[in-house]
Amino acid sequence: MDSFDAISPLDYRYYSRDKNFELLKQFLSENARIKYQAKVEAALAKVLAKNKICSEKIANEIAKACEKVSAKEVYEEEDKIRHDVRALANKIREKVGEEAKPFVHFSSTSYDIVDTANALRFKDAAEQALLPALLEFEKTLMELALREKETVQIGRTHGQHAEPITFGFAIASYVSRLGGRIKAIQYAKENLCGKFSGAVGAYNAASLLFENPMEFEAEIMKELGLKASVSSTQIVEAEPLADLMHAIVSCFGVLANFSDDMRNLQRSEIAEIGEEFSARQVGSSTMPQKRNPINFENVKSFWKQFMPRMNTVYMDQISEHQRDLTNSASQRFLPEIFAALFLSTKRLDRVVSKMSVDKANMKKNFENSKGMLVAEPLYILLAKHGHSNAHETVRELTLKAQAEKKSLMGLAKENKELAGFLKKFSKEQLEILENPEKYVGQAVVKTKKIVEHWKKELGI
Amino acid sequence: MDSFDAISPLDYRYYSRDKNFELLKQFLSENARIKYQAKVEAALAKVLAKNKICSEKIANEIAKACEKVSAKEVYEEEDKIRHDVRALANKIREKVGEEAKPFVHFSSTSYDIVDTANALRFKDAAEQALLPALLEFEKTLMELALREKETVQIGRTHGQHAEPITFGFAIASYVSRLGGRIKAIQYAKENLCGKFSGAVGAYNAASLLFENPMEFEAEIMKELGLKASVSSTQIVEAEPLADLMHAIVSCFGVLANFSDDMRNLQRSEIAEIGEEFSARQVGSSTMPQKRNPINFENVKSFWKQFMPRMNTVYMDQISEHQRDLTNSASQRFLPEIFAALFLSTKRLDRVVSKMSVDKANMKKNFENSKGMLVAEPLYILLAKHGHSNAHETVRELTLKAQAEKKSLMGLAKENKELAGFLKKFSKEQLEILENPEKYVGQAVVKTKKIVEHWKKELGI
Amino acid sequence: MDSFDAISPLDYRYYSRDKNFELLKQFLSENARIKYQAKVEAALAKVLAKNKICSEKIANEIAKACEKVSAKEVYEEEDKIRHDVRALANKIREKVGEEAKPFVHFSSTSYDIVDTANALRFKDAAEQALLPALLEFEKTLMELALREKETVQIGRTHGQHAEPITFGFAIASYVSRLGGRIKAIQYAKENLCGKFSGAVGAYNAASLLFENPMEFEAEIMKELGLKASVSSTQIVEAEPLADLMHAIVSCFGVLANFSDDMRNLQRSEIAEIGEEFSARQVGSSTMPQKRNPINFENVKSFWKQFMPRMNTVYMDQISEHQRDLTNSASQRFLPEIFAALFLSTKRLDRVVSKMSVDKANMKKNFENSKGMLVAEPLYILLAKHGHSNAHETVRELTLKAQAEKKSLMGLAKENKELAGFLKKFSKEQLEILENPEKYVGQAVVKTKKIVEHWKKELGI
Amino acid sequence: MDSFDAISPLDYRYYSRDKNFELLKQFLSENARIKYQAKVEAALAKVLAKNKICSEKIANEIAKACEKVSAKEVYEEEDKIRHDVRALANKIREKVGEEAKPFVHFSSTSYDIVDTANALRFKDAAEQALLPALLEFEKTLMELALREKETVQIGRTHGQHAEPITFGFAIASYVSRLGGRIKAIQYAKENLCGKFSGAVGAYNAASLLFENPMEFEAEIMKELGLKASVSSTQIVEAEPLADLMHAIVSCFGVLANFSDDMRNLQRSEIAEIGEEFSARQVGSSTMPQKRNPINFENVKSFWKQFMPRMNTVYMDQISEHQRDLTNSASQRFLPEIFAALFLSTKRLDRVVSKMSVDKANMKKNFENSKGMLVAEPLYILLAKHGHSNAHETVRELTLKAQAEKKSLMGLAKENKELAGFLKKFSKEQLEILENPEKYVGQAVVKTKKIVEHWKKELGI
Repeated sequence: MDSFDAISPLDYRYYSRDKNFELLKQFLSENARIKYQAKVEAALAKVLAKNKICSEKIANEIAKACEKVSAKEVYEEEDKIRHDVRALANKIREKVGEEAKPFVHFSSTSYDIVDTANALRFKDAAEQALLPALLEFEKTLMELALREKETVQIGRTHGQHAEPITFGFAIASYVSRLGGRIKAIQYAKENLCGKFSGAVGAYNAASLLFENPMEFEAEIMKELGLKASVSSTQIVEAEPLADLMHAIVSCFGVLANFSDDMRNLQRSEIAEIGEEFSARQVGSSTMPQKRNPINFENVKSFWKQFMPRMNTVYMDQISEHQRDLTNSASQRFLPEIFAALFLSTKRLDRVVSKMSVDKANMKKNFENSKGMLVAEPLYILLAKHGHSNAHETVRELTLKAQAEKKSLMGLAKENKELAGFLKKFSKEQLEILENPEKYVGQAVVKTKKIVEHWKKELGI
Repeated sequence: MDSFDAISPLDYRYYSRDKNFELLKQFLSENARIKYQAKVEAALAKVLAKNKICSEKIANEIAKACEKVSAKEVYEEEDKIRHDVRALANKIREKVGEEAKPFVHFSSTSYDIVDTANALRFKDAAEQALLPALLEFEKTLMELALREKETVQIGRTHGQHAEPITFGFAIASYVSRLGGRIKAIQYAKENLCGKFSGAVGAYNAASLLFENPMEFEAEIMKELGLKASVSSTQIVEAEPLADLMHAIVSCFGVLANFSDDMRNLQRSEIAEIGEEFSARQVGSSTMPQKRNPINFENVKSFWKQFMPRMNTVYMDQISEHQRDLTNSASQRFLPEIFAALFLSTKRLDRVVSKMSVDKANMKKNFENSKGMLVAEPLYILLAKHGHSNAHETVRELTLKAQAEKKSLMGLAKENKELAGFLKKFSKEQLEILENPEKYVGQAVVKTKKIVEHWKKELGI
Repeated sequence: MDSFDAISPLDYRYYSRDKNFELLKQFLSENARIKYQAKVEAALAKVLAKNKICSEKIANEIAKACEKVSAKEVYEEEDKIRHDVRALANKIREKVGEEAKPFVHFSSTSYDIVDTANALRFKDAAEQALLPALLEFEKTLMELALREKETVQIGRTHGQHAEPITFGFAIASYVSRLGGRIKAIQYAKENLCGKFSGAVGAYNAASLLFENPMEFEAEIMKELGLKASVSSTQIVEAEPLADLMHAIVSCFGVLANFSDDMRNLQRSEIAEIGEEFSARQVGSSTMPQKRNPINFENVKSFWKQFMPRMNTVYMDQISEHQRDLTNSASQRFLPEIFAALFLSTKRLDRVVSKMSVDKANMKKNFENSKGMLVAEPLYILLAKHGHSNAHETVRELTLKAQAEKKSLMGLAKENKELAGFLKKFSKEQLEILENPEKYVGQAVVKTKKIVEHWKKELGI
Repeated sequence: MDSFDAISPLDYRYYSRDKNFELLKQFLSENARIKYQAKVEAALAKVLAKNKICSEKIANEIAKACEKVSAKEVYEEEDKIRHDVRALANKIREKVGEEAKPFVHFSSTSYDIVDTANALRFKDAAEQALLPALLEFEKTLMELALREKETVQIGRTHGQHAEPITFGFAIASYVSRLGGRIKAIQYAKENLCGKFSGAVGAYNAASLLFENPMEFEAEIMKELGLKASVSSTQIVEAEPLADLMHAIVSCFGVLANFSDDMRNLQRSEIAEIGEEFSARQVGSSTMPQKRNPINFENVKSFWKQFMPRMNTVYMDQISEHQRDLTNSASQRFLPEIFAALFLSTKRLDRVVSKMSVDKANMKKNFENSKGMLVAEPLYILLAKHGHSNAHETVRELTLKAQAEKKSLMGLAKENKELAGFLKKFSKEQLEILENPEKYVGQAVVKTKKIVEHWKKELGI
């Protein structure tokens, strides 16, 4: 297939053209799917030999055959017999001698292979691709947070200027949320499990062959570095994978929120940060002056495409009796979600590494609201010094300040009722009221604390 | 890209290996996307010429260049300048003389091209691929409904035997629901529209060139056979496309319901229908006797994957101010939904065309409940003949029948209170009570009516 | 129940405390549900009489009883017999004489009543509550669009200043999108249908009583002002209601987009519009100066709560065989979506009616980008006058302008290559380049056109 | 409000009429919401006193006032000032002396109260309502699994008879999946956290009052038995609550799957289990004989209503900058999901406790497929004894058996090729082939193991 005849934007546009394509395809492609299934078939043979069901020699012969199987030939066989896992078994069988043939796929049901192979490749994909990428981005965020920990920025709630923070502190909240999601993915991928309990989960066939079929299952899982399902039917219970997908999708949500924040900070009127723009890059096909936050928009757009797929994951929890096949095609799409989060993480890492912070604009925006920012500290300090209705009094004063376009502190000083209280204020307190940029609370300290916390938690 | 390095199951497994691949790729591939965009660029040139902005010769030169542009070269250009539509314009421009260059993409913004091209290809995809497939399946269902219109089947509500219908009547309800969705798709695809209103929808650039830019937009749309948006910003408003996607997704829901019904009728204990099974086909990798309803399960599974994508469509309604780009990547995935419904429709058509109906089992299942089925007609007829508490009386009688494992009519005849009423029953009425297979109401008549109704509505 | 012991925010906070509570509860409450079901039972009795199954007198007696039935007594009866519709029938039956009792609910199955009653009340809710509210808001938007049709505003794409429009034009795009959704709701509510085809849709019971049971069904529908389903099972096919819910949910999406736009325009740095703020209103419990766009935020939040419920609607399309009950509880929640859209519409209407437009800030924001805005007209005019690489030339000029902090037109005039072209520009063309606020294209004309179009379409 | 004027089915039908209403309303009602907020205000006062900001006496006065505050008065105040948390503060303030007034809500922002109170009540709701209900149902399932651990049932995959299991084993898989979800909920509720970091998360106001505001926050959390957020803005980061909602929604998925299985086992043709039916209960308003699986259908229907609300949870992860309010209204609906899962769990517990198991039908269904069930053990044993193409050979034999309506073992014995192999089979092996009901593998052992595993894990 000409790759531009492909229908999936991941295939023709994003995943295949990304420089991490070679890495990702090891886990997420159809070649990978079949490679992992063959790996499980090889582990089965090895454990059959360990249990004297077949000889070591046969197990090795099968293992070698498993390494040689290609997706292409399996698909050709499937076209004939219309069963994908049996097609795989047939192609392995073809590659071994007569004596070995009966022990290929021996005693197992398709989903012993499929679910175990999926658990393995999703675990590998998390460990070898997704988590390293997330950790790298986490480090980039940590560096940014520390670098900008003292850069005063106006905090915004409801899109309105609220109270001062620092830009590093704002970034630190993403360090923390992303850190939490990395932990969640680490936790969930450890709980993925495989199974070798046969067609209905009761080890029916295996019971004909082994004294202790559960021990047999445990040995195969040990061989592969996986947990065995506590209780499977034809398939592994859906929840461990659902937990991983939730961790992934909710991690995507953190990236989406970060992206929204960044593209809002890039608004023409705010202009506190900027995506790097290459010299040859075209911003708009008709407006030559445009510089759009296309990378942040792309991540948000990916999130919109992939987040709703959790609905599929939840619907796939339902499989009738010892299973039905209605989760088969739908689960084949799961690797796309891994790829999407990986690509978005790498994209953000790239952009944030080179992102410009416009301190002048940050200062300018802050200055614009400066006059009103003292409302909170003023009310707190009035209350602290015994004013019994401080919030309401200051609220009315701010209305007056807005109406008369005067400074709030100016009006406060003119106010007779307040005079007595203001006198009680300490030097430091007055300094904050005169210089609201000092009213950043624990922003600097907390930024450092958050970064330290997550460095320790994540071992980076 | 090796097609098994692809990540999308549509690409490596379903769409690319389907015999309708050549048809679908004309509308749904990335090649198609770019081909349609070039088609819009050509129409633009043509209308520029019509308005004397450039010469006919130039327009023809551009039109020819548009036909030659390939996705591959556009992507290579995009890699350099990082703007997809400008890349397309550049590649067209390369193929024309100096004099023509300025008129390529002239005065238009990217989304004049992108949204118009999408409207066009989605309309074509609906008209030339999706609707023909749906109509073909509709005909298959109609034939089945008419063929089996008199095959008595027990109607089931809540999985419980309820009242007799005919199998054809059961199928007719899908004839009707599918017919309704075909109409909905036909209606919605007619409302797709394009736009040529420029970067913010106010025809800013075009106003420099034309007396009546809205007329200019209308001419391009006429050239392409599309409606112009009543009101666009940088983009066409999201709703016409959302309506089409709703029609498509809700059509998928009808197929999913049909598939669930069919696979339930294929349960071992029910066994009223069967998917055809090829001689070489393997049902299970470990249970050689298995015959699984894999096609119906596949359709249900596709529905689970694609239905939730309506959430993306709804989220993509939100685009800030004159637009943001957060719908760009996500909308690139829309063709997948077209392909998924098309493939599922073709699959069902194939399976239903060869589906076996096991009339013996249908009869057997019906016979098993026969004794209880007279409960409703008995209560209705008692009430009709003046019994004032017929429902409760019969309900108690059925409990007794179940407890004593007797026939309901037997008990009714023994019952003194009812004797007087039973005497009043007409011969036909008694015949239904004795032969519940005659209690199918209007099943036969209605089946014919439904098929006729939809033949007329759909012009088939 | 103490209303603050309620669990639904609609009940304790939004719907019950709204001044339109009395209106909405007529269609959306449980009292309404039962009232409408009783209305259908009354229509049934009337048509039974028309068909001489019972006397006129009996039909009138039943109709009177139907008017008297209360939800409370039906629920008490249901507690005993555990069947809701039979409970309703019992309570009606209690209120009529012996002779009339057998004809209450006669020959009908529960869902003849339930689905027909729902179609009726949803149609009424659309016609009498939702559509009037939407039309009122549409008028408010029209007025605002016309009033502000000449107020120049910078158009924004990707959050970046793009090209000039007018604020009225920006509003007109919502006039158009909302108009489209009103039409969609009008269209969909007309297609709601009822049914009287009995327990499995084959008119089994009715066939014992009537020559032409489909005619009988048609008569009841005519009595109620509804269409009859073309093909029902125990239930009306799911699609007509799904279409209405799609129209409603996608209408909600338009309101959500509008709200996002408005709250972004209310950002401290943009400040082009403002929600009215009452004198006693508290913006923040700790920041006395805050003025938050709480109403626009509320509408967006409602959308987030209700949009995903379309997934439920789509899942409810699937009902096994002649139906299962798994759509029963879930469909009971549908009225909440009607209420949510109604309340959000009224909220927006209220806020927009009093919304302040800060023309000074609009102008200020526009002025800030003025210098760069000429990029597009400059490139268009250069191209029009024969420059063969205008877009690229101007793009480079804008980079230079940004780097050197100079005006784009200034640089253009200094540029020797461009001098020859600039000379060819007409006076009007030069005027636009010097006064970019004139570069609003068709914004004013189009605003008027859009409003006229929808006034005509909607008959307002 | 008349409770039948309510719009939420939870309010008028399910939650308010449930016998656990009194329990649930303590956590999930609006009264509870406000009660928990007042509890946080009281904890704040206590810690203020501990830090010598106010006296112990004042703290006690405030704590007492907090206990007296009612939702009703708070709503009345909110009607005036249009800010819900400030309204609460005002009503507390009203109840204390002049000296105490300034210390009510002192230094905190609304969401210090709201998010902390929510974490607390959701934790309590999980611990005191949801988890006890789930554990109770878990025990019911364990008892059923153990009781029926030896009841042979045909295992079903794809709705087709597959291999024998026991009914207890089938139930055990739900013991395990439910056990896993209970653990997930336990884990997630422990991670809920509160915050007291002020309006933008930087402890701005608190820094005016305390040496170590983070320590102050920690003290309040300790007082309430909650963790403090590692990093908050105006709000607690969304993820801990999202994790809990995922645990809850995925637990709902397990119940939905269980319900689907049970209602399928209740199908007329299968009839292996039955919901208890009360003597007065009406199954259908027109079919007096019907016994519908209404409870299992209800649980599935609830799942369809509540599962999609995870989309809202994921969308609520996105809050701009230091927060916007678009998660405010939507989060008010979260308690509904707790209630829905609680009610469904109780419902299932009730039904399963009294569920009848029809062993005769289980045996009958098993017997019907008996003849074909030996396919797998036959092929396994042939392969074990050296047959190199056993799967294919047996597959062909099953086709023959079906075509000729003969027993598979009969044909196998007649087959000359197989004769040599059959001779090698042990007595036990032959016994399984002759008595397929013995081919249940480890079903009995595994059932016991699973139950023991989860008893230990859950400490029950």
